[in-house]
Amino acid sequence: MLAIGDELLSGRTKDKNIGHLAEVMTLAGIDLKEVRIVGDDPHMIADTLNTLRRAYDLVFTSGGIGPTHDDITADAVAAAFGLPVIEHPEALARLEAHYASREMEFTPARRRMTRTPQGAALIDNKVSVAPGFRVDNVFVMAGVPSVFQAMLASLVDQLPAGEPLKSRAIPCPFGEGDIGDPLSEIAKANPGVVIGSYPKFDGTRYSTEIVIRSRDDAALDTAAKAVEAMLAGIENRRQA
Amino acid sequence: MLAIGDELLSGRTKDKNIGHLAEVMTLAGIDLKEVRIVGDDPHMIADTLNTLRRAYDLVFTSGGIGPTHDDITADAVAAAFGLPVIEHPEALARLEAHYASREMEFTPARRRMTRTPQGAALIDNKVSVAPGFRVDNVFVMAGVPSVFQAMLASLVDQLPAGEPLKSRAIPCPFGEGDIGDPLSEIAKANPGVVIGSYPKFDGTRYSTEIVIRSRDDAALDTAAKAVEAMLAGIENRRQA
Repeated sequence: MLAIGDELLSGRTKDKNIGHLAEVMTLAGIDLKEVRIVGDDPHMIADTLNTLRRAYDLVFTSGGIGPTHDDITADAVAAAFGLPVIEHPEALARLEAHYASREMEFTPARRRMTRTPQGAALIDNKVSVAPGFRVDNVFVMAGVPSVFQAMLASLVDQLPAGEPLKSRAIPCPFGEGDIGDPLSEIAKANPGVVIGSYPKFDGTRYSTEIVIRSRDDAALDTAAKAVEAMLAGIENRRQA
Repeated sequence: MLAIGDELLSGRTKDKNIGHLAEVMTLAGIDLKEVRIVGDDPHMIADTLNTLRRAYDLVFTSGGIGPTHDDITADAVAAAFGLPVIEHPEALARLEAHYASREMEFTPARRRMTRTPQGAALIDNKVSVAPGFRVDNVFVMAGVPSVFQAMLASLVDQLPAGEPLKSRAIPCPFGEGDIGDPLSEIAKANPGVVIGSYPKFDGTRYSTEIVIRSRDDAALDTAAKAVEAMLAGIENRRQA
């Protein structure tokens, strides 16, 4: 994923799209491998996009497709692909109809939102009409979270889905320091699963959530039982 | 910045450190230029870190310095620099004292948290003692937000501060489509400032926050007045 916008790097806006995309991809059985955040710099966007679209099967972008002068994603994506930018006829038709129906002026600024690289396919926007677009393996979406989410929902069923990764979360009342050694042994003994441990700190003491992930149900069960037995063992030793 | 952790890419954990670092850097007058998020893959972490530390003056990492088997950041950072990993004597002393004072066992897992690349300087952790560390221009910090924030607070005064970027936020009741054209003219006429416009959508209508940024107070004033005059002009035309 490539999240675009000076406001994300200045801290003015806290990104909400990365975590959402991550959740949706996990449910769809698609592994999110890398995220980059860059500012409103056309060369940086184009260079980063070229790196990501060659490295990965799918790339999703957020941000920079609105009507103002700092919305430069369409131009940067076109530059990355070496394509000209056009006013997309279908986008033009949708926005003309939308503003006419609301008796709003279809200003040159709003018209900017119809610009896509030549040959792009549109991504529907059920929230505010102005579409995103797809070029090859790159999906270009809005930065406003409600619109990003609507666009992603409209396309996720068309993606090549993998076998969903299943996960089992096991709450653990002990800190990572208490479970690190035995958990490491369990991880070594169960190569078919990935075991993560996520520390929580409530201000006075640590607890942990242990998450086991696998595409194989049996491997997941075996590892989960080993973790539960380990936790029961620690508990028993403490009470003894 | 480099944020590390499978849990960020699966959506299980929503990152809170990127936005915090961005805010702190902006206040310190340091421009955050790029963020990457990668999983718990030692080669990916090392390669990404080598790219970032050569491209930028400062690099901050979050995540992967706890006591469990999936905490591999110290090893990956050492690999990136071609350094051996040692048990840092001062970190060892701090953690031994900490666990002794609490009558807690200093397990091999907890001892993992003393591992740093050789020659690293420690970053204090006032929340839970186990330190972060610095190697050259790379600052390695925890992923737990309260600990990340404490570590960043302990080092930010030592960073080479730039002239802080000042900003002026101007709320705007109109959508970007209404202001895009005149705002674009103002941006062109005021090259000493960066003007961002951030759409908000409340479910029925768009409004916008216009943010002007500059290191030059006079340029900021001039551009802010131009934006306010533009908004007053739109308002007057609507009422006419």
